[in-house]
Amino acid sequence: MQAVRAKIAARALAPGDRLPSIRRLAATMGVSASTVVEAYDRLEAEGLIRARRGSGFFATGADLPPLALAEMGALRPRAVDPFWVSRQSLDSDPSALKPGCGWLPADWMPTGALRKGLRALGREADALLTDYGNTSGSLPLRRLLLGRLAEEGIAAGPEQIMLTGSGTQAIDLICRLLLRPGDAVLVDDPCYFNFQALLRAHQVRIVGVPFTPTGPDVAAFEQAVAAAAPRLYITNSALHNPTGASLSPQTAHRVLAAAAAGGLTVVEDDIFADFEPALSPRLAILDGLDRVIRIGSFSKTLSAAVRCGYIAARADWIENLVDLQIATSFGGPSAVATELVAGILAGGSYRKHMNETRLRLARARQEAAERLAALGLVPWIMPRGGFYLWCRLPEGLDSSALAQRCLADNVVLAPGNVFSVSQSAASFLRFNVAQMADPRILASLRGAMAGQHGTPVGLNPP
Amino acid sequence: MQAVRAKIAARALAPGDRLPSIRRLAATMGVSASTVVEAYDRLEAEGLIRARRGSGFFATGADLPPLALAEMGALRPRAVDPFWVSRQSLDSDPSALKPGCGWLPADWMPTGALRKGLRALGREADALLTDYGNTSGSLPLRRLLLGRLAEEGIAAGPEQIMLTGSGTQAIDLICRLLLRPGDAVLVDDPCYFNFQALLRAHQVRIVGVPFTPTGPDVAAFEQAVAAAAPRLYITNSALHNPTGASLSPQTAHRVLAAAAAGGLTVVEDDIFADFEPALSPRLAILDGLDRVIRIGSFSKTLSAAVRCGYIAARADWIENLVDLQIATSFGGPSAVATELVAGILAGGSYRKHMNETRLRLARARQEAAERLAALGLVPWIMPRGGFYLWCRLPEGLDSSALAQRCLADNVVLAPGNVFSVSQSAASFLRFNVAQMADPRILASLRGAMAGQHGTPVGLNPP
Repeated sequence: MQAVRAKIAARALAPGDRLPSIRRLAATMGVSASTVVEAYDRLEAEGLIRARRGSGFFATGADLPPLALAEMGALRPRAVDPFWVSRQSLDSDPSALKPGCGWLPADWMPTGALRKGLRALGREADALLTDYGNTSGSLPLRRLLLGRLAEEGIAAGPEQIMLTGSGTQAIDLICRLLLRPGDAVLVDDPCYFNFQALLRAHQVRIVGVPFTPTGPDVAAFEQAVAAAAPRLYITNSALHNPTGASLSPQTAHRVLAAAAAGGLTVVEDDIFADFEPALSPRLAILDGLDRVIRIGSFSKTLSAAVRCGYIAARADWIENLVDLQIATSFGGPSAVATELVAGILAGGSYRKHMNETRLRLARARQEAAERLAALGLVPWIMPRGGFYLWCRLPEGLDSSALAQRCLADNVVLAPGNVFSVSQSAASFLRFNVAQMADPRILASLRGAMAGQHGTPVGLNPP
Repeated sequence: MQAVRAKIAARALAPGDRLPSIRRLAATMGVSASTVVEAYDRLEAEGLIRARRGSGFFATGADLPPLALAEMGALRPRAVDPFWVSRQSLDSDPSALKPGCGWLPADWMPTGALRKGLRALGREADALLTDYGNTSGSLPLRRLLLGRLAEEGIAAGPEQIMLTGSGTQAIDLICRLLLRPGDAVLVDDPCYFNFQALLRAHQVRIVGVPFTPTGPDVAAFEQAVAAAAPRLYITNSALHNPTGASLSPQTAHRVLAAAAAGGLTVVEDDIFADFEPALSPRLAILDGLDRVIRIGSFSKTLSAAVRCGYIAARADWIENLVDLQIATSFGGPSAVATELVAGILAGGSYRKHMNETRLRLARARQEAAERLAALGLVPWIMPRGGFYLWCRLPEGLDSSALAQRCLADNVVLAPGNVFSVSQSAASFLRFNVAQMADPRILASLRGAMAGQHGTPVGLNPP
């Protein structure tokens, strides 16, 4: 393949030129005829050559697909906005260090179970491997999720749960169902940056409610409900992103009461549930899926390469959400993905894996906190689970500027203001304690902090 | 429903107010009690009213009814609407016969290659199995697709292509980028039913252009461009769904000229490309991806359980579409899916499989046409590829009524009007020639046709 590509690139094979016969090239290259057939097939699949029946292979004259795809890895400079962390974390080259990213390293994930699951899939019935699934998603996986809801004390029927392409897509469908441009939506300040990106796509007014170590500030929440008449509140009740805090029972009760008084719907994104050592209060449990919608996914605990989320909600909403998912994606997640997830969740190994992961994270959290403390970074709280540490910088340092500097060292940080509607978190960074092993991370951070201390406070680059 | 909605909107029915009893409203409106029950049921599903056991229906005070797609055009699962075929085909039990569905049977698909691909995935690196992919999607698959575009004569760079969760999601992202509620969008009449469902979700005006055996009626297209000032035209140029027709060079040129004159963007859904025996004219080729956006997927030729679509377009649009996909799905298709697709496309076996499938379809098409002719059903055209036959019923028969009757025999048909914006295709059915093997299908159809001939023409149930 390389030989033919090189000849075409060097114009030694012009458009329309016949390629050597399979037998001749095999002899010349000292390989088997079947190797040449395979190489020609692939070159044809790439569009570089084409077979004409009975007369051999010819160069097509198609420009080589730019080899420069790798150059796409060089990211253009972008503003530190709600897309910043996503783009930097997802598109950085594999050698980048990513203490700012929102997932566990590959070697923390249950790869053995995934490999086993893929092999098992290879033995499944034809129809499972080729057909669209049903519109609500794989029944075995929905049953498993209903069982988990029942364990939490939420009695829900199969008509109250559907699978989606991802957790984010679950929220997007809900926004499509319930929001109109110009509506107000409450989020925590700080909150997961992609809530803001998503809500911007819906052209709604985003109203931030200050977040406390026990959940949203209730007085501010009540005031925002009264002032903005929001249609929706989107939150993580357990192991909140970015702070790692969890809702207290009192805050849960008062937030739900305020939501009821204001007639607003709550989307509870429960993506970090399995990282909790014990179940903390949930709005969906108090409410019983009346005005609270539960969403979740398996990207953080199982695999982000096997996309699958879910929505548990009122049956009438689910029916409309299923229609919306047909209209906008022609169905839910890949059956290949849902069978894989269901197989792993149903096996006993998943619970064992999560037990180990929680212990490992507790150790990593402690270590990271100590190493960050040595730099003067102080955790806002010490979370009871998960992988985030929300840390305050020493006086006068700006986290966006630090993130830009560390990026030059190929270190991706998560600066506070990408999480903050009010842009009041400039002195915070979110760290992922599972992504802190490499000593170059703290070295880069130390260097950036030292460099920044030389610039006057308040004049940091935006 | 409109009467109750109007009363609520005008505050003539305040929250908590009791609605007229079913019997009373039926008498007032001069309709049957069952019509009122149906209307109340729908209003309850929308959250506008709520039943209290034994005491009637009450206004809820929910001021903003959620975006039930049903609101926008009489869409309930029981109605023969653009969701009818999707819901029936996707959610029917496995024993259902589905000559109306839009995909090949499992035993026509390359299951051997899929199984091999899944086993190969099980040996991939940890990171591929656990991490989010990059934001534009798998590099090898994008390179393959660029190669295929080059083969067609479209020179596109890597910044002009992205992968999406599905073909439908590709169109949805484009609609999100380019459309605002109230915009006009042109579609063919008839067209793929889900284009209508998708456009309703975007709350745009759908304008149908009569379709001819060589593409859209050019004069009508030009007139619609002038009259409606549409922002977008969505079409299948090759092996059009539902008719199987392909664009002629003259129509392609004139449609593109009219689109340019009207300043509208064209979305060319190329999902059936690999079923063509030879490349027919494409708007994207004539245009070179300037105002035409190419989308496609692998659901029809490879597997619908491995969801993956793509968009090829102007680089500035792709950049915005990637951001939109991050915001609304946190990235593109599963890396597990894209590796599987790339592996199969790159191997030589895919082309061999498609060669065989085309021959097999040609035979099945001929057979199906003969058997349908015996019932008096005549193909509108004989397509040069693909699996659809768009057939006209004998005079006086209504395809929606036939579809409802055959459903009782567990046979899912695709009645013409689900494809028709103007509802002018009541005398057509779309058949899938690969799903016609079971003799019970034609037996059911024959029975339904005989039964319907007993009812007066024009009085067929809707």
